[in-house]
Amino acid sequence: MIAAIVHIHVKDGFTDQFIEASIDNHLHSVQEDGNLRFDILQHKDNPSKFTFYEVYRSEEDVQKHRETDHYKRWRAAADPIMATPRFGVAHDVLAPRDAALWKK
Amino acid sequence: MIAAIVHIHVKDGFTDQFIEASIDNHLHSVQEDGNLRFDILQHKDNPSKFTFYEVYRSEEDVQKHRETDHYKRWRAAADPIMATPRFGVAHDVLAPRDAALWKK
Repeated sequence: MIAAIVHIHVKDGFTDQFIEASIDNHLHSVQEDGNLRFDILQHKDNPSKFTFYEVYRSEEDVQKHRETDHYKRWRAAADPIMATPRFGVAHDVLAPRDAALWKK
Repeated sequence: MIAAIVHIHVKDGFTDQFIEASIDNHLHSVQEDGNLRFDILQHKDNPSKFTFYEVYRSEEDVQKHRETDHYKRWRAAADPIMATPRFGVAHDVLAPRDAALWKK
């Protein structure tokens, strides 16, 4: 498993547009075979900041995600409205290791 | 729902000890009624850095978690071995909203 925590800061006035594009990305991404989670989170103390929690079975599955139409559609919507460059931090998953807790 | 992303940096030489204490915390926390996730992640590029992804049904459930014996046990093990102060960022959960994806 590979887990990415992605830190995102959206330009003022573009929050609703960003959420709409990200929910679309979420709904399609969770249907990918290799996807285990794709959670969209919004900072409570700053609604223009978001965190994505993306978990895939393998690095190969992450690469497949980046080739999908829905990822490209999200990029086209999100790229122009970043307040600062977004960045992801790659993680190993230590827990849960129980496959049932990742089943969809 | 309330989601916390907790950023943790452990002193050199204490990584194994921290993981053991955190897995214990995970195994007990996921059994709490109000807990929806308690994922323990380790940075791929720096094994002394960790991220916890903790999701609870409500703020009240977060408070209950902080009163548990397993949380206090984890605090006693983790507090002395932090390289820098850890911090959590509270989030609203925008997706998934489907309860089935949070079912345990």
